Amino acid sequence: VGDLSLNSTNKTLQQALFDAIQEKIISQKWQIQQKLPSTRRMAEELKLSRNTVISAYEQLAAEGYLHSKKGAGFFVSVSIPEEFLTTRGTSGQRAIDNNRSNCQQQDKEHNRPFTPGIPDLGNFPYSKWQSMLHRHTNRATISGVGDIQGYYPLRDALSQYLQSSRSVSCNANQIIITSGAQQALSISVLATLKQGSRILMEEPGYPQMRKILNLFNCDTLPFQVEPTTGIDLTSLSRHQSEAIYLTPSNQYPMGTSLNTEQRLQILRWAKERQSWIIEDDYDSEFQFSHRPYASLQGLSAQSGVSDRCIYVGSFSKTLFNGLRVGYMVVPENLVSKCLDIKDALAGRTAVHTQAALADFIAEGHFLRHLRKMRKLYQQKSDCLAHSIKTHFAGKWTIISQSAGLHTTVKWYGAPTEEQMVELAHQQGITVRPLSYYEHLSGRREWNSLVLGYGNAKIEEIDERIKTLAQCFLGSELGGHEVNGE
Amino acid sequence: VGDLSLNSTNKTLQQALFDAIQEKIISQKWQIQQKLPSTRRMAEELKLSRNTVISAYEQLAAEGYLHSKKGAGFFVSVSIPEEFLTTRGTSGQRAIDNNRSNCQQQDKEHNRPFTPGIPDLGNFPYSKWQSMLHRHTNRATISGVGDIQGYYPLRDALSQYLQSSRSVSCNANQIIITSGAQQALSISVLATLKQGSRILMEEPGYPQMRKILNLFNCDTLPFQVEPTTGIDLTSLSRHQSEAIYLTPSNQYPMGTSLNTEQRLQILRWAKERQSWIIEDDYDSEFQFSHRPYASLQGLSAQSGVSDRCIYVGSFSKTLFNGLRVGYMVVPENLVSKCLDIKDALAGRTAVHTQAALADFIAEGHFLRHLRKMRKLYQQKSDCLAHSIKTHFAGKWTIISQSAGLHTTVKWYGAPTEEQMVELAHQQGITVRPLSYYEHLSGRREWNSLVLGYGNAKIEEIDERIKTLAQCFLGSELGGHEVNGE
Repeated sequence: VGDLSLNSTNKTLQQALFDAIQEKIISQKWQIQQKLPSTRRMAEELKLSRNTVISAYEQLAAEGYLHSKKGAGFFVSVSIPEEFLTTRGTSGQRAIDNNRSNCQQQDKEHNRPFTPGIPDLGNFPYSKWQSMLHRHTNRATISGVGDIQGYYPLRDALSQYLQSSRSVSCNANQIIITSGAQQALSISVLATLKQGSRILMEEPGYPQMRKILNLFNCDTLPFQVEPTTGIDLTSLSRHQSEAIYLTPSNQYPMGTSLNTEQRLQILRWAKERQSWIIEDDYDSEFQFSHRPYASLQGLSAQSGVSDRCIYVGSFSKTLFNGLRVGYMVVPENLVSKCLDIKDALAGRTAVHTQAALADFIAEGHFLRHLRKMRKLYQQKSDCLAHSIKTHFAGKWTIISQSAGLHTTVKWYGAPTEEQMVELAHQQGITVRPLSYYEHLSGRREWNSLVLGYGNAKIEEIDERIKTLAQCFLGSELGGHEVNGE
Repeated sequence: VGDLSLNSTNKTLQQALFDAIQEKIISQKWQIQQKLPSTRRMAEELKLSRNTVISAYEQLAAEGYLHSKKGAGFFVSVSIPEEFLTTRGTSGQRAIDNNRSNCQQQDKEHNRPFTPGIPDLGNFPYSKWQSMLHRHTNRATISGVGDIQGYYPLRDALSQYLQSSRSVSCNANQIIITSGAQQALSISVLATLKQGSRILMEEPGYPQMRKILNLFNCDTLPFQVEPTTGIDLTSLSRHQSEAIYLTPSNQYPMGTSLNTEQRLQILRWAKERQSWIIEDDYDSEFQFSHRPYASLQGLSAQSGVSDRCIYVGSFSKTLFNGLRVGYMVVPENLVSKCLDIKDALAGRTAVHTQAALADFIAEGHFLRHLRKMRKLYQQKSDCLAHSIKTHFAGKWTIISQSAGLHTTVKWYGAPTEEQMVELAHQQGITVRPLSYYEHLSGRREWNSLVLGYGNAKIEEIDERIKTLAQCFLGSELGGHEVNGE
């Protein structure tokens, strides 16, 4: 064990042991291929439970710091992250390590603070989730070919949640569990549109939806969303399209929402034209300033248009992205068509995950987590707004409502949003330009960024915004306001 | 606890307790909403460990026999399976229960003995798998948005397995992890074909592939597979198609395989026509009578045609169907196109499952399981062949090779294969008619069934085949051979 010592302030003993060993490896005080003390000896000398040591070793192995040899114990691995790699190892191994490390690097950027679309990954109740999974992952009776529509108890639990929390009008037979909401969107498109069909889509809007429409050669008609005021529906009646795609409760990424009058107007339009409505309700669980609007789908049922409305939801924002479970609620007469498409596209969705999720919802953990996260995200949203006000001296305006996992800001004049992305990147901060969400470009006279705070630690937000403000104000061109605001 | 008594012959104490409580509920000796003894009291009175009791209660809850109320304990649930429901409960609840039960009933039929495509679900090392999952499912660092191509350590482990066991020519950068092999087939089709493109497909062949081709309006050209002799390639040169879909190592469902000369002929054809080869290597791990042929993809690399070959594989047969992880190996210049399609279609694949699977392979559990199952499936295959010989008095001929998870049989004259399916169904046995796999119908003068033995218990096989033989020989029309054999 040597001079290994644990600092367990603010962390579990397992994490403390992980950190201590990681430090030894990174600093190369423990050499590549060196054998670690046995778990028994480590446990005795550090007065830890053996399970704690085993868990820490296994986590280190999972992250590539250690590897185990059967019957021989654990060894410092050659596959340590590339940023710490010296010239050791064969070039082949180094190429693999580089590749692995590039992937890890990309993954890190995907999940950095201020990257939109990522929830608070550190605050998910993993041990509760583990125990739900553990309860089901040894059930041979469900391990075979399951229900293409999704595991029934999950659809049942979900239908109750959607009815009570999102006013969705549905029963379990209208719900289809999908391998991520992206799959639900694909199925929606294939079930309602053909090659060359026209679909109205918010502009700016969700790029992942645009990818599906491009893949299947649908004709995307951009429907302008203005800052703060949202979609201008006066032009709606001029549009002849087979479908409309909407994020009505928290427009992505502009952060506006449709009021009831606007929703009714869309429903009337869909009824008259016999058009489809695809409602993407991706993060409505997190609405801070007022009660969330009931879903458009729920209103459609009251208005007799429910047979034209498809509702799509995700667990990526409420739980975590890597779960890859989404769902769709479809009119009863569209269920079998959607199931045929799901069957052909990709087949069933992982069953043990569905079973664990069913219990996670039915036993109340889902709602409990949502309540906790709603508070936390509101704090983050408030903190972000406050920091922007403090550090940007009025130069950035927040245009999105206080909801969801992101804040959208706007400014006139230099630097451009692309310059700002680059400046932030140099400081290790990932932010998204609004242009990322646009089908058409070059129409705006203002700049805009989308800042995701879901996975930002609340105590880091102010410091990072300060850094962004320094970039912004310090850039050669920065700080010169132009007329027009 | 009352008169609860355990019969633990041939089962674990947990299973014995499960069965005893289940019996009480089904026979309605324990009434709906009745509170169960606490886990502590149950453990004391039956002299079981408390963990055993908790596990049994949780399993009963998971299967819908019990439900737990926080702080109050476990209660007999109203949602008991429909076949045991009397008039109790509201009609709404009964409708839900009916539905749930129908789903469970369907699931059971999907996974019955002799249903093709299901591996031995009882012999999977679930506790090992649980521990691999447990190791990863609390890792916040990988829970966000991961690599669209798949978790790198899994691709790395898989590339080593595929190179050494299936002679696939690949590195981790050519592997794409998919949400089931079905998704890999969808991506293959979308990456290589357009609406109206022609593709050669084995006839009879895999119906799930045909569904994809229909969904995307491709033109399927059936390519006849004959019993025992397989595909007749003399007509190949006449075909002008953009792609060919093949199960070369164990043709599904005819159970023939292409020899090296035939494989080279297909490669030459693909090279000349610049056609794509989609190789579906769905169960080659289980080849009993000889060493499995190297993959067609591997041979294509040696022949300089590897840029035309897509290799698709699955864990559904080697582990279990409900896992929903598949993979594809694609030419390097096709990787980014396939990733764009995967991104649009459904996005990433569940990350914790991938991480657990990476360890399962890298630590040797995968190969160990394959070795064990190869032996077991060979025994089942032999047993099935022996039983058919014993009970069918020469009237059924086995036409498939001794490999994989199914045996295909052929006979002339009555009863028809559809009659045989119905007769078997009445005896609670699920078998598939060969017509299920055919694009064109009415061309055959003989009957054929596909019998999956993967999930049949070896000790049940003889009895079930005997039952099938009784159906066959006892059917009014049965037993009358016609000329032509």
